Amino acid sequence: MNRPPIPAHTVRWFCLVLLWPLLLQAAESLPSWHDGPSKNAIVTFVEAVTREGSKDFVAPAERIAVFDNDGTLWSEQSMYFQVLFAFDEARRLAPQYPEWKQKQPFKALLEGDQKTMTASGMDGVSKIVAATHTGISTEIFIANVRAWLAKARHPQKDRPYTELVYQPMLELLDYLRAKEFKPYIVSGGEVAFMRAWAPEVYGIPPEQIIGTRFVSQYQYNNGRPLILRTPRLAHNDDGPGKPESIDAIIGRRPILAFGNSDGDLQMLQWTAAGSGKRFMGLVHHTDAKREWAYDRQSKIGRLDKALDQARADGWTVVDMQAEWSRVYPSD
Amino acid sequence: MNRPPIPAHTVRWFCLVLLWPLLLQAAESLPSWHDGPSKNAIVTFVEAVTREGSKDFVAPAERIAVFDNDGTLWSEQSMYFQVLFAFDEARRLAPQYPEWKQKQPFKALLEGDQKTMTASGMDGVSKIVAATHTGISTEIFIANVRAWLAKARHPQKDRPYTELVYQPMLELLDYLRAKEFKPYIVSGGEVAFMRAWAPEVYGIPPEQIIGTRFVSQYQYNNGRPLILRTPRLAHNDDGPGKPESIDAIIGRRPILAFGNSDGDLQMLQWTAAGSGKRFMGLVHHTDAKREWAYDRQSKIGRLDKALDQARADGWTVVDMQAEWSRVYPSD
Repeated sequence: MNRPPIPAHTVRWFCLVLLWPLLLQAAESLPSWHDGPSKNAIVTFVEAVTREGSKDFVAPAERIAVFDNDGTLWSEQSMYFQVLFAFDEARRLAPQYPEWKQKQPFKALLEGDQKTMTASGMDGVSKIVAATHTGISTEIFIANVRAWLAKARHPQKDRPYTELVYQPMLELLDYLRAKEFKPYIVSGGEVAFMRAWAPEVYGIPPEQIIGTRFVSQYQYNNGRPLILRTPRLAHNDDGPGKPESIDAIIGRRPILAFGNSDGDLQMLQWTAAGSGKRFMGLVHHTDAKREWAYDRQSKIGRLDKALDQARADGWTVVDMQAEWSRVYPSD
Repeated sequence: MNRPPIPAHTVRWFCLVLLWPLLLQAAESLPSWHDGPSKNAIVTFVEAVTREGSKDFVAPAERIAVFDNDGTLWSEQSMYFQVLFAFDEARRLAPQYPEWKQKQPFKALLEGDQKTMTASGMDGVSKIVAATHTGISTEIFIANVRAWLAKARHPQKDRPYTELVYQPMLELLDYLRAKEFKPYIVSGGEVAFMRAWAPEVYGIPPEQIIGTRFVSQYQYNNGRPLILRTPRLAHNDDGPGKPESIDAIIGRRPILAFGNSDGDLQMLQWTAAGSGKRFMGLVHHTDAKREWAYDRQSKIGRLDKALDQARADGWTVVDMQAEWSRVYPSD
């Protein structure tokens, strides 16, 4: 059969008419998102998988959404906040460990010797993380994180860390929950560190938070059991570790995944490779004024290969500067 | 102040009057439970933590309930069903591995040489489990388990394995869900093995199933990612491994725990040690006629130390023979 092609402007007009009520509804749900390609992509996807009778309909139980944390739900510059916690915590604990005065990388940290600290690299950071995150029970560790958060302020932004969360992403979480999605955090951050504050800040319960884990050890001391955190790494929840823990812990493939860096690439690939409609999103840090601007060259949150694949495969790349009317709740 | 003591029969009468409406309601919810100490303990606990205004009230989000699987939700004799799957699966796969004809413990299994098989012990079983459970993707493994379940029958009971679940425990799961509890399986069984059938049989979704895990490995083969199961053990979810994985994966302490063996002892201790009202239960296999009778001397599902602690600490011990009017759904 030979039909005349439908003119492009008719297609565009038709799409707009169909989308209009959705966009109005989304304007209420996602007020900090400017009308633009990312918001349209989110709304179009959510509508397609949640509308009864839609050919792309997904049952509520299967509406698993996974979010990276650092750089996706809150800021991560000029250093992951968990590492800044570890540094502050090591300074707080130093009086209990006089040997740190002579022992690197603790010595450098305590003396403010940035050159030696930087030279110690990831290995040095790991030692400080282990010293401040392990050897104690989960309960005590979580109390320590909360005590820090109650007082600490971000050095450049001069605000509590928990205020450096992205308002548009909070709205997205609410919007997805209203549409019966189940949002998970899947982050390279340590899981108990996040559980100390993320349930309150994001409304995501502890059992929907997945992260890097230390080996823990159950002890039963005369009827008083405790879970001791040991310095041995059980799982590094970064890169390929993300789909691995999604498979191990959730046991379902997400239909929506949001990240911001190459550490999220495998989680997005894994999400994309499922059958049916999928949404893959990246937060692109393009806003040097309100937040930070970085991508391919950054040491923290490098976005390079994932940006290439996003462009090639048509994933959504959120231009923070152009598409978000607010970055932080207090803006 | 010196008050005359209230006579015991008055106390008993008063308690009965208070409990009566609850017991009537529970008779509908738990029809396969005879009126007896276990049912009373369950109903009294659930009522105390769920009734608005109760001094023991627990918010729905904190109503985490954990259940062992083998021997607690379904039978485990004369061998864990997952091991019987592994044996059947090794026989099915044998043509692809001609070397097994000369290699123990595969040789003994294929030849039906029970003496050598038994002599190979847990090490021999582990080899057969690893050979049948790993080296493939999670998706293929789950498909294999489902294909087996569709045809396999329990050797003594001559019924599909999924019919050897305990009717009273299915009712308990429903009752708890109706009271806004969130039930988890926390089992020594391998997690993907359980996810192949437990969501349908128990109504427990994959993300609420925790078990023993193999290390998995994300692979990206020209745009087709897969999660490969490797033979290395990531976590043994038995004994102390149970509270460890509850802490790592759920991140909240359960308020109700049910097990049946010494492998559940630490999970019950961990649950008991939380603040507020708690429920710890053990299924005691006392029914040689309808199911099996075993405890302190059994190689499978030994119940010895946990039985002592249950008696000492007043945990609920369910006498299967006396307290369950039905064992299996088909009874």
